[in-house]
Amino acid sequence: MEYKTLSRIKSPADVKNLNSEELKVLCAEIRDIIIETVSKNGGHLASNLGAVELTVALHRAFNAPEDALIFDVGHQSYTHKLLTGRFDRFSGIRTEGGLSGFMRPAESEYDPFVTGHSSNSISAAYGIYRAKRIKGENGTAVAVIGDGAMTGGMAYEALNNAGSGRNNFIVVLNDNKMSISHNVGAMARSFTKMRNKPKYHKFKFAFSNFIFSIPVIGEKLNLFLYSVKESIKGFVYRNNILSAMGYNYLGPVDGHNIAEMEELFKIAQTYTRPTLIHVVTTKGKGYEYAESSPKNYHGVSPFDIEKGAEFGGKITYSDIAGKALCSLAQSDSRICAVTAAMTVGTGLNDFSKKFKARFFDVGIAEQHAVTFAAGLASCGLKPFFVVYSTFLQRGFDQIIHDAAIAELPLKLLVDRAGIVGEDGESHQGIFDAAYLTQIPGINVYSPCYYGELEEMIKATAQNNELAAIRYPRGCEKENTEYTYKGEEFSVYGKSGKKAIITYGRLYSDALEAAQRNGDTDVIKLNKIYPLSDTLIDTLCAYQKLYFFEEGIRSGGIAEHTAGLLADKQYKGLYKIYAIEGEFVPQSSISSALKRYKLDSEAMYKSICEE
Amino acid sequence: MEYKTLSRIKSPADVKNLNSEELKVLCAEIRDIIIETVSKNGGHLASNLGAVELTVALHRAFNAPEDALIFDVGHQSYTHKLLTGRFDRFSGIRTEGGLSGFMRPAESEYDPFVTGHSSNSISAAYGIYRAKRIKGENGTAVAVIGDGAMTGGMAYEALNNAGSGRNNFIVVLNDNKMSISHNVGAMARSFTKMRNKPKYHKFKFAFSNFIFSIPVIGEKLNLFLYSVKESIKGFVYRNNILSAMGYNYLGPVDGHNIAEMEELFKIAQTYTRPTLIHVVTTKGKGYEYAESSPKNYHGVSPFDIEKGAEFGGKITYSDIAGKALCSLAQSDSRICAVTAAMTVGTGLNDFSKKFKARFFDVGIAEQHAVTFAAGLASCGLKPFFVVYSTFLQRGFDQIIHDAAIAELPLKLLVDRAGIVGEDGESHQGIFDAAYLTQIPGINVYSPCYYGELEEMIKATAQNNELAAIRYPRGCEKENTEYTYKGEEFSVYGKSGKKAIITYGRLYSDALEAAQRNGDTDVIKLNKIYPLSDTLIDTLCAYQKLYFFEEGIRSGGIAEHTAGLLADKQYKGLYKIYAIEGEFVPQSSISSALKRYKLDSEAMYKSICEE
Repeated sequence: MEYKTLSRIKSPADVKNLNSEELKVLCAEIRDIIIETVSKNGGHLASNLGAVELTVALHRAFNAPEDALIFDVGHQSYTHKLLTGRFDRFSGIRTEGGLSGFMRPAESEYDPFVTGHSSNSISAAYGIYRAKRIKGENGTAVAVIGDGAMTGGMAYEALNNAGSGRNNFIVVLNDNKMSISHNVGAMARSFTKMRNKPKYHKFKFAFSNFIFSIPVIGEKLNLFLYSVKESIKGFVYRNNILSAMGYNYLGPVDGHNIAEMEELFKIAQTYTRPTLIHVVTTKGKGYEYAESSPKNYHGVSPFDIEKGAEFGGKITYSDIAGKALCSLAQSDSRICAVTAAMTVGTGLNDFSKKFKARFFDVGIAEQHAVTFAAGLASCGLKPFFVVYSTFLQRGFDQIIHDAAIAELPLKLLVDRAGIVGEDGESHQGIFDAAYLTQIPGINVYSPCYYGELEEMIKATAQNNELAAIRYPRGCEKENTEYTYKGEEFSVYGKSGKKAIITYGRLYSDALEAAQRNGDTDVIKLNKIYPLSDTLIDTLCAYQKLYFFEEGIRSGGIAEHTAGLLADKQYKGLYKIYAIEGEFVPQSSISSALKRYKLDSEAMYKSICEE
Repeated sequence: MEYKTLSRIKSPADVKNLNSEELKVLCAEIRDIIIETVSKNGGHLASNLGAVELTVALHRAFNAPEDALIFDVGHQSYTHKLLTGRFDRFSGIRTEGGLSGFMRPAESEYDPFVTGHSSNSISAAYGIYRAKRIKGENGTAVAVIGDGAMTGGMAYEALNNAGSGRNNFIVVLNDNKMSISHNVGAMARSFTKMRNKPKYHKFKFAFSNFIFSIPVIGEKLNLFLYSVKESIKGFVYRNNILSAMGYNYLGPVDGHNIAEMEELFKIAQTYTRPTLIHVVTTKGKGYEYAESSPKNYHGVSPFDIEKGAEFGGKITYSDIAGKALCSLAQSDSRICAVTAAMTVGTGLNDFSKKFKARFFDVGIAEQHAVTFAAGLASCGLKPFFVVYSTFLQRGFDQIIHDAAIAELPLKLLVDRAGIVGEDGESHQGIFDAAYLTQIPGINVYSPCYYGELEEMIKATAQNNELAAIRYPRGCEKENTEYTYKGEEFSVYGKSGKKAIITYGRLYSDALEAAQRNGDTDVIKLNKIYPLSDTLIDTLCAYQKLYFFEEGIRSGGIAEHTAGLLADKQYKGLYKIYAIEGEFVPQSSISSALKRYKLDSEAMYKSICEE
């Protein structure tokens, strides 16, 4: 396609010069290129399609980068990228060396902060806002946050902090009707129009100042008027948590009407109280498949534009985990499942339908999820919190404080453990093996095959243990028969001299490398923490050991092993191959594994070297 | 003293049998024993004195342990302990082997969940509430949470989750006016009285049901009435965030009037919507010194009851950190300080007064604090987030995602690192060395002496680095002159054969042990991550190495060192002494160090052994 209008946008200044007809063309072209590109590269579709006009209006009303715009999560930042000088590179989004699917300061001065994990935008934007005031600079900061991300406690902490002072800090709530209250209607809109005209606002401020100037009773009178105003807002937006926190509330406004949004965004800049602008958008807007099924089209793999995406293709580790939980729940009424807004991604769809009373989607709230599940566990239930490795970082303190101290038998199913691929730095599951294994009393397991994952889930449901089972994104590598019977580790081969130690999905590559070398055994860890004396004794019998770990080296299992080998005064060769001191950039999983010498070929070379 | 009434209370059932005169005596005795005990053992005073009547009323209106009562943070759980069979053991609170200063399930069936870290009570209580429903058991769960703890995002996540369904879950807001809105007054109280009489409530429900039964317009009409009700609440409690979230709001009620509270607690149990009861208490109630200066009497060391506590005695590491920041801020306008509701504890009192525009108390909100500070850093400022080690666990994900990926030069001053003493398991700073050193790009420093702490703060302010400086609770051990000039490590001694490796405050004990042994050097790490090649080469020259670490072994610096020594094929002896696989129970710091063989005497024995 040609993208005649879009290709001429070199910076946001160019967006400001377009008339309303040109804007329509621009938005249509943006939708086309997003659909075209995501259909090839995969990525977030529905959320990006919903935020096209919103982003255009933001860039017309504000002056980026002087005004910092932060799109929470970054799921909806594609239009922002297209309008800020990245049109030429857009076709390579989410590929190795290409644009990120999220905001990355390293990529553009228009991306003021990293996004990826939910609910951080208000904190970051308010930090930037205060920094500008301290430095005496112009410009404001705007957090654009979805209704889903608003369920994260961090967003509330930031709102609470930013709402306490006199400032013109701005939060835009992109309400695509995925989570919060739906009570907005015709009457609400009419109130909004009335309340948001500049004239009305000027009157209100003048009036309020007048009231305050009345001695003694002025403040009380103003309080009375305030409460009347609150009752008006009660109509406008029933779930008025924001106005309760001291925010000017503007909206709801049609998130596909650029002119209306622009007006509100400009009004908000004149205020001296923090403002929340409530924008209502349609997820998937402009692509029929996505609009009618926004949940399915949230994140997609490459697809055929005419036919729409295909779902429910290959079985994944997530599916296996969900299936195993369903099967357990059938016969054991104590089994519960908890998710932090990831029912589909973690394979819990079936569970959520079959066992409604024992299924809990608590919102994007990992802190609460861990402790809520620990609460269930404290009463003798068997809760499984199923969560992506990278997001569980948010629940680190809660695992320690709320589950481990009281030795509660909470179970964590840690999905997307290890390298995740195209989502890049912010989403890699490379830390869990290290941070989970610091926690006193926890048992951590790492299956390679589907069958092992199933067995481990079954076994841990029987045991009165605080446990985590971690498994990778995507599909099992080979459909090999597994031999796992609950053993902590297995030894493959009989060389007795050299051995590879590894766990999780690296095992099949390790086996390949060892067999090619001919003289090397593979020690496959099934339980990665704590490591037993028996294991260490077994290792000590070898002259040369090579630990390959798909995770951060610092604090990982290979280092634990190094310490334990030292305890036994092991004198042989011990080499560690892992991810060292850097974040893993976006690329295919196989490419990333090569980068860290964790693929079969590199393993083979390493074990041949010395 | 005798405690005639209190000593007869063996369980909450006994509290239910007292008449109002006896209750007065009981409360007076409880206050006496709390003041007497805290004056001897130290502990939380003001918050406990404020919650005496509240706790008595709770135990009269509810049936613990069938009804689970969770006191958030646990600062105010002393009365609860006294009423639930722990009067006899109360004199030993916060001593080794004695009662905990917080809630501990291991201590009593009346403590349903661990408390200590703020804002977890609603999550835990809601988990317990749901578990009771799943199991078909009787009883409810009640979270008792202070206004300070309500600033934590986790509380909001839980309120959001619990507020979404039909249930009679109960949250009691213990508003001791330390944080949130003060707009409660005479008018508010009169509204409360009117609204909370059972008759009125019955009428309201009947009326609401009648309205709903009107076809077509019934629901809309009800919505209208709802918004009118909201406006009434606007009077009652301006900061009506809870009613916005779907909670029945009852209150404010006088938190020292047992009868009134009891009535509301009983009403709340009849509802089918979650309820928030707003209780207003006076922190420090009944002890004049504490009442007039509740912040100072929040947590106290032993004191003279007649004269009151003494403050501002010995200089601590916290004071030094605060002083260093003030001195830097004087000459560099980019220095900022951020605290999560710990201005006094972290030594920032002076800074908060002298540099108001660059000082930020963001509430009990570590997640937000890290990211807000990262936002400041992204604009070229130099923010220091000063925080206790144990509470920084809450910001783990944010350090990774919001600071480290974009390589922002955020500075973390990690106070109370290592063993903290009498607060016990929930407050030990034994994890930070492990969890911080997993993070790519971070530099971590660990001073032993005050002078080193100052130098490190100065140096890191100059460097464009993501950095953490961790230092222990309390005072420097000896007033030794320090020789630190920015070197990564120093070697003391010239044996060249055996060496102790250590960091932080253990150094002085290590030096003592080494000197006594006569044949051992001490290698003192100043920068504990990353460790340089030069250090490892230095270590490799020794035949025997002993690493003593005041922190969790798994993932700590000693294990990192083990891995690096293996890289260099070190063949000598390497022994690790650290805290292994358990939480550190309450005791004096010196007693705990002995327990883990980290005192001078034990070090001496260890290095003599092999």
